[in-house]
Amino acid sequence: MSEPAFIGLDAGGTRTRGVLLVGKGRVTSLARPTDGRSEESVLRALLDVIRDLREYAGRLGVSPLGLGVGIAGYIDHERGVVTESPNLPLRDLPLRDLLGRETGLPTVVDNDANCAALAENRLGAGRGCRHQVHLTLGTGIGGGIIIGGELYRGASGSAAELGHIIVLEGGPQTACGHGGCLEALASGSAVEREAKLLMEEGWMPLGVKVKGSELNAADVAAAARAGDPAARTLWERMGHFLGVGMACIINALNPERLTLSGGLTEAWDLFSEPMMEGVSRHAVPLSFEAVRILTSELGDWGGAIGAAILSAEAAH
Amino acid sequence: MSEPAFIGLDAGGTRTRGVLLVGKGRVTSLARPTDGRSEESVLRALLDVIRDLREYAGRLGVSPLGLGVGIAGYIDHERGVVTESPNLPLRDLPLRDLLGRETGLPTVVDNDANCAALAENRLGAGRGCRHQVHLTLGTGIGGGIIIGGELYRGASGSAAELGHIIVLEGGPQTACGHGGCLEALASGSAVEREAKLLMEEGWMPLGVKVKGSELNAADVAAAARAGDPAARTLWERMGHFLGVGMACIINALNPERLTLSGGLTEAWDLFSEPMMEGVSRHAVPLSFEAVRILTSELGDWGGAIGAAILSAEAAH
Repeated sequence: MSEPAFIGLDAGGTRTRGVLLVGKGRVTSLARPTDGRSEESVLRALLDVIRDLREYAGRLGVSPLGLGVGIAGYIDHERGVVTESPNLPLRDLPLRDLLGRETGLPTVVDNDANCAALAENRLGAGRGCRHQVHLTLGTGIGGGIIIGGELYRGASGSAAELGHIIVLEGGPQTACGHGGCLEALASGSAVEREAKLLMEEGWMPLGVKVKGSELNAADVAAAARAGDPAARTLWERMGHFLGVGMACIINALNPERLTLSGGLTEAWDLFSEPMMEGVSRHAVPLSFEAVRILTSELGDWGGAIGAAILSAEAAH
Repeated sequence: MSEPAFIGLDAGGTRTRGVLLVGKGRVTSLARPTDGRSEESVLRALLDVIRDLREYAGRLGVSPLGLGVGIAGYIDHERGVVTESPNLPLRDLPLRDLLGRETGLPTVVDNDANCAALAENRLGAGRGCRHQVHLTLGTGIGGGIIIGGELYRGASGSAAELGHIIVLEGGPQTACGHGGCLEALASGSAVEREAKLLMEEGWMPLGVKVKGSELNAADVAAAARAGDPAARTLWERMGHFLGVGMACIINALNPERLTLSGGLTEAWDLFSEPMMEGVSRHAVPLSFEAVRILTSELGDWGGAIGAAILSAEAAH
């Protein structure tokens, strides 16, 4: 008999990633651009990736038994509905039932950061941990909480909105409207917002070509590495507030491990020191001693891998 | 056969409360002043209360089967050790073993806010909830988290230090050293600190007799009810920051219920409105809709009742 196989998808704003998980952790992956113009175009991208992965599974001689999908936003995991997504034009979409019907596969849908947390817990930087918190640091900040070795979803499936804990009440706003939340201070969009403000005041960052009045977070990282003092300060500030937010999470949940993934971790050299300083200043000593802080082992693929694991665990 | 009975104690800075829990919820209670001069005097107060409760149990014809003790501070529940207490001169004290030896009863020790959370979950304002968070609002702010119907203690027993989540990084300090934490902004000591600052600037609160340059929180409440605008503003500010902290907890944990106890809840009429405004502004909508916010049903006795329940549940 062939090994069990599951498909996992992570539908991001710019890219749809897919993996085929075979057995206990062999993974094949592929990615395609997401066409985010409409609900239909997003669904088409998902179905294209599923078709390609099934074809590939056929060549391996395995037949996928289930499908998991991770999506940024508010997901009603119980009913399989995408309530709202910040990056995709989906609202109150019964994605589980739609994809289940199209593919004939048992389907589960969850928040992408929940999926990433599960993947790190099962196969990555949180392996073997009973209590773990995962943060995804990208344009926004997402969170996933593992308690007793299982994803913790809360009373109505909306737990772990850790980008929206407030660390500087009255501080800068984001699209979400929660002034001073972690996402408003330590996400990619926060770094970009602050860089833009500096440029409006006449800042010319060292070592990067400026397009208009906006820099992306990678540009700000390049400028910092080229020695630009203002860019370095932006990353120090980002790291500091990230550390404060992590200390809040550590004080509330006393996890064994706190893991971090997402595009922003590429600037680890620029923010990890002030981050650790913020954590050690604000975490209560017993909990600080108990936690290990690690970057992801699965990187950008954590969401899709976790979606496949979710599907595999639902099948048991 | 007589009904099972358990003794619960809550050793506070000024008072030691004790209860005898008989059957599924019949409670007899008594309190004595805590003599906090030394480790010995604290232990003596505990043993005095235990003796009186056993005497009372004898008259009821029941014999206590176990003892639970709740204490403010860092408690190593696993080993039964009081690591550190803010209000009592106890440090690295193996209280479980000491009291177990003295009384001959199986003994458990836990943080007082954990005990209060358990009591509200089993017999009070959180009855029937799977996921609940409890806050004790007194001189300091303590927290207890119930997940899946059980106390959540974290990786090293120090979870739920919810007074030490940071809501205003860089804000006022407390004894704990965590500037801008919830305790520094929304506890009794925060209200008293702000009142003292105002008095140093010449404020004369309406309707209360001033002793020296300090008012306690009850005085500030009396002044606010007498119509003093500065006192009213202090409670509004306290309520606002409490609401911000509660929103953080709600966003992280998506509880069914958030319950509140402690002396400060006597000023509920003065702070609950700005508190709810802070919660609704900062909680993510799905989690806000799912949570009910209630004051305690067991009041100041929650800690002792919870300690007795902890002992009873440990016996099963």
